[in-house]
Amino acid sequence: MTHAQCADFRLCREANLRHDGRMHIFDLAREHAVIGSSEAVLGWDQETYLPPAAAAHRARQLSWLTAKAHELATSAAWQRALEEAEAGAADADFTLRANLREMRRMFDRATKLPVALVAREAAACSLAKHAWAEARERADFAGFAPHLTGLLEIAREKAERWGYPDEPYDALLDGYERRTSTAAVAALFDSLRPELRRIAASAVEISAAQAPGLPPGPYPISGQQRLNAQIAEAIGFDFQAGRIDTTHHPFCTTLGPRDVRLTTRYDEGDFTSSLFGVLHEAGHGLYDQGLPADDFGLPSGSPLSLGIHESQSRLWENHIGRSRAFWNRWYPVAQDCFPQLARFPLENFLRYLWRAEFSPIRVDADEATYDLHILLRFGIERQMVNGSLAVADIPAAWNEGFRELFGFTPVDAREGCLQDIHWAMGGLGYFATYSLGNINAAQLHAAACSDPQIAAACEQADYAPLLAWLRKSIHGHGATLDSAELITQASGKAPSPSAYLAHLQARYL
Amino acid sequence: MTHAQCADFRLCREANLRHDGRMHIFDLAREHAVIGSSEAVLGWDQETYLPPAAAAHRARQLSWLTAKAHELATSAAWQRALEEAEAGAADADFTLRANLREMRRMFDRATKLPVALVAREAAACSLAKHAWAEARERADFAGFAPHLTGLLEIAREKAERWGYPDEPYDALLDGYERRTSTAAVAALFDSLRPELRRIAASAVEISAAQAPGLPPGPYPISGQQRLNAQIAEAIGFDFQAGRIDTTHHPFCTTLGPRDVRLTTRYDEGDFTSSLFGVLHEAGHGLYDQGLPADDFGLPSGSPLSLGIHESQSRLWENHIGRSRAFWNRWYPVAQDCFPQLARFPLENFLRYLWRAEFSPIRVDADEATYDLHILLRFGIERQMVNGSLAVADIPAAWNEGFRELFGFTPVDAREGCLQDIHWAMGGLGYFATYSLGNINAAQLHAAACSDPQIAAACEQADYAPLLAWLRKSIHGHGATLDSAELITQASGKAPSPSAYLAHLQARYL
Repeated sequence: MTHAQCADFRLCREANLRHDGRMHIFDLAREHAVIGSSEAVLGWDQETYLPPAAAAHRARQLSWLTAKAHELATSAAWQRALEEAEAGAADADFTLRANLREMRRMFDRATKLPVALVAREAAACSLAKHAWAEARERADFAGFAPHLTGLLEIAREKAERWGYPDEPYDALLDGYERRTSTAAVAALFDSLRPELRRIAASAVEISAAQAPGLPPGPYPISGQQRLNAQIAEAIGFDFQAGRIDTTHHPFCTTLGPRDVRLTTRYDEGDFTSSLFGVLHEAGHGLYDQGLPADDFGLPSGSPLSLGIHESQSRLWENHIGRSRAFWNRWYPVAQDCFPQLARFPLENFLRYLWRAEFSPIRVDADEATYDLHILLRFGIERQMVNGSLAVADIPAAWNEGFRELFGFTPVDAREGCLQDIHWAMGGLGYFATYSLGNINAAQLHAAACSDPQIAAACEQADYAPLLAWLRKSIHGHGATLDSAELITQASGKAPSPSAYLAHLQARYL
Repeated sequence: MTHAQCADFRLCREANLRHDGRMHIFDLAREHAVIGSSEAVLGWDQETYLPPAAAAHRARQLSWLTAKAHELATSAAWQRALEEAEAGAADADFTLRANLREMRRMFDRATKLPVALVAREAAACSLAKHAWAEARERADFAGFAPHLTGLLEIAREKAERWGYPDEPYDALLDGYERRTSTAAVAALFDSLRPELRRIAASAVEISAAQAPGLPPGPYPISGQQRLNAQIAEAIGFDFQAGRIDTTHHPFCTTLGPRDVRLTTRYDEGDFTSSLFGVLHEAGHGLYDQGLPADDFGLPSGSPLSLGIHESQSRLWENHIGRSRAFWNRWYPVAQDCFPQLARFPLENFLRYLWRAEFSPIRVDADEATYDLHILLRFGIERQMVNGSLAVADIPAAWNEGFRELFGFTPVDAREGCLQDIHWAMGGLGYFATYSLGNINAAQLHAAACSDPQIAAACEQADYAPLLAWLRKSIHGHGATLDSAELITQASGKAPSPSAYLAHLQARYL
C-alpha cells in the first residue's frame, strides 16, 4: 500500500513485480489517481493559461490520459486485485471495508458500460458542446435538439445497464449523489416549493425598495487579488498547498493531495463578484485540503458527493461570507483597499450583499431565488430522462414552469432552457445537488454553531474552530459514509431542510 | 498516420484495431509525443506555479508519465512496427527514410540500456541533485563526490552499452549532438583557445575603462513585461501558440505543436536581465514554433540537437538583440517604459550591453568570456568520463584550468566546480553544445545576412526576412539532417568558427 508513495514508479513497479507479480488494489487505485490528477493539471492549464492555438493538441493529451485511466480501472488486473482484497477483508476495519465497498461500486458502474458506449458518449458530448454554444448564441433550440435527443438516448441506455430501483433517473442521480432516490428528492423539493416561493417573492420586494447600489468602480484587480488572498488565508485556505488563478468560468480543481487550485474572474465594477467566487471555491478547496492526504486516490481520501462538496462551498460563501460578523471584521480592510467605500456605510454594504432579484439566469441568482431554478430543472430533467417529456416540448415546458415559479417568461431559449452547459456535457442528474448542497450547508452550519465556542468565535470572525469542526465531522471521513449518514453523524439529526428554511427566513423576511 | 491526430484516442484505437490489430510506427511515435508533451505540461507547471507542498505528488505524476513513455518506446509493438516500416521503405522519400533512420537510432539507444540501469540512474540523479544543492551551498565538494562517482560509473556503463568509435565520451556527446566526435570538438576548442583568450582579455580591459553603469532602478516588472512581450512579438514569436511566464531558472519548453512556453525572471534593478532572457528563450521558441507542426512527435517535426537549438537562441540574443540596429529601433520604446533612461544616451546603453568581465560563474558570463567556461568544462569532463581524472582531483584540476584561462582562481568550490547542476542531473556530455551553438549562430547569421535584402531589413530592425530564412533553412528540416549537413546546406560552407571569431573581433576589439 506504500509503493505508490515513493518517488520513482519504475522502481516501485519493479520492486512489486519481484515480489509476487501482482499489485494490491490500493496500489492500482493510487496509480489511477496519479493519472487522474495529471489529467487535472492539463485541465487546469487549459482553463487558465493555454494559448488559443494549442487547444487541439490539449484535447489529444486529455483523451490519452482519460483512456489510460479507464483502461486501468476496468482491467482484469484491477478486477482480480479487488476480488483478492474483498476475499481477505472479513475482519477488516471500518475504513478498509468502506474503501472496498466503494471501489466495488465504482468498478461495477464502470464495467457495466461497454467501451463503445463510453466512446460514443465522449464523441457525442464533444459535438454537443459546440452545437450548444452555437445554439445558445442564436437562441435556437432546434439547433441543439438533435444532440440532446442523442445524449438522452445514451443516458437512458446507461441507466438501463446500471439498473435502478424505481425509475431511470435514479441511476443518473446515483452518479452524483449515491444511493439517493429520485422520488425522495422530488418529495423534498415539492415540500419546499411553497415556502421558497414565499421567501423569494418577499425578498425581491423588500430588496427593490431598499437595496442600495455599490459605489462605482474601478475596483482595481490588484486590490481585489490582495483582499481575496487575505480572506482566503484567514478562513484557512493553505497557500502552501494551493493557489488562485484567473479564468472565465471559475472552478476549483485538485491536482494532488496537497495541490488545490481555485480560480476566479474579476469585474472592475464590483469587487464582491470575485470575492464571493473565491469564498465559494475556497469552500470547495478547504474540503479537498482537509481530505486524508495519505489516502489520496482511495475512497477514504476522496470527496463524498456533489451535494456534500456544494455544502462546503455554500457554507463559506453564504453562511460565513454574507454574515454581519464577517464584515464587521473585513469591511474596514475592504475600505482600505477601495477608497470609494469610505463613505459607504457597512449597513448599506450588507443590504447590497443581501439584495434579491428575479433573474432568468441561474448563475446570476441570489440565495433567495437560487433554488427555484433548481426545482425547475430537476422536474424537467426527470421527465426528459424518464420519457414523459419529448425534447421538442422542452422549451414550452421550461417557460411554463418558469412562469409559475417566477411570475414571468424568459424572452428566449438563451435566457431559458439553453442557458446551462450541463446537458451538453452529459451531466444529466447533476442539478439537484446544488439545492441539496444549500440544505446540507445550513444544517451543518447550525450544528457547528450549536457549540457556543464555535458560535462565539464566528461572531469574532475567527473561523479556526469552525474549520476544525468541519475537518473532524466532514472532511476527515472522505467517502466512507453515505451523505445521509455523514450529515446525521455530524449534526445529530437526520437530513432536513428546516435549518435552511430558518436561515432564509432570518435573512430575508 | 492520421489516427493520432483526431481528438478521441479511444475511438481511434478501436478503429485501428478493427483494421488489422497493429499500429503504424508513426502512430506510436505520435502517441509517445502525446505522453512526452503531457510530461512537459507538468514540468512547466512545476517550475512556474506549483505550490510548495505539492512537489512530492508532482514527482509521482512525472515518474508515471516517464515510465509510460519509456515502456511504449521500448515495447515489442514498437519494435515490430519499426521493422515493418523499415521493410516497406525501400522506395520511400527522403523525409520518410530520415524519420525511420532516426527512430531506429533512438530505439537502439533506448533498448541497449536495461530498465534496471535506467531506474538506477533516475534514483541516483534524484539523490545527487539534493546532495549537489547542499554541497554547493556549503562549498563542500566532498559532500557531492560520492554521488558524482556513482553517476560517472553509470555514465561509463551507458557508454559501454551504447558503444563508441574512439572513447567513452563519444557515446555521451552523441546523445546531445549526434554523430559528433569528441576528438573533433577537442581539436576545434584547442584551435580557438588562444584567440578566445586574446579577445576576452582585451574586451575585459576595454570594458573596465569604458563601460558605464545602467541608471539605477526600479525598472517596474509590469513595464519589463510589456516591453519584453512587444519585442518577442516583433521578432516573430507567436503568442497565439505560446506564452511568457515567470520562474527562477528561465527555460523554454514545448507542450504541443502549437504551445511553446517561455519563462524569465525579473530584476527590478536591471531590465536587460529579463529582456535578454526572453530574447534567448524566444530564439529557442521560434525554432520550436517553426518545426513542421503536422510532424510533431516524428524526427521531421523535432529539433535536431542542442548545438542547433542553442544556435537559434544565441542568434536572437547576441547577433540581433545586442546589435546597434536593434536598439536604434527599440531604445526609444525602452525610454518610454523607463523614464530614468531619458538622459542615458544610446551610445552609453550599447557600451553597457557590450561590457565584458571575468566572472567565476558561467551563467553570469558575457559573450566575450563565455566560451572559456565551456572549454574548461569540456576538458575536465572528458578526462572524468574517460577515467584519466579521479573525482577527488576535480577541484584542483578545475582551479588550475580556470587560472590558466582567466588569470585568477575561484575562491571556493561554490564558485568553482560545484556551480553547475548538469553533472548532478546526469547531463555529462552536454556542455560543449553551448559553444557549438555560439559558433553555429554566427555562421548562420553571416550566411543569412549575405543576402542583401535580409541584411538591409535587419538594419531597419525588420526581422521577418531573417526569420523566413531560418524557417526555410533550419526550422523546416526538423531532425532529418545531421548538424554538419544542416549548417553546410544552410550556409553553403562546412561548419567553421571563422564567422564567430570575426563577430567577436568586430564587437570587442
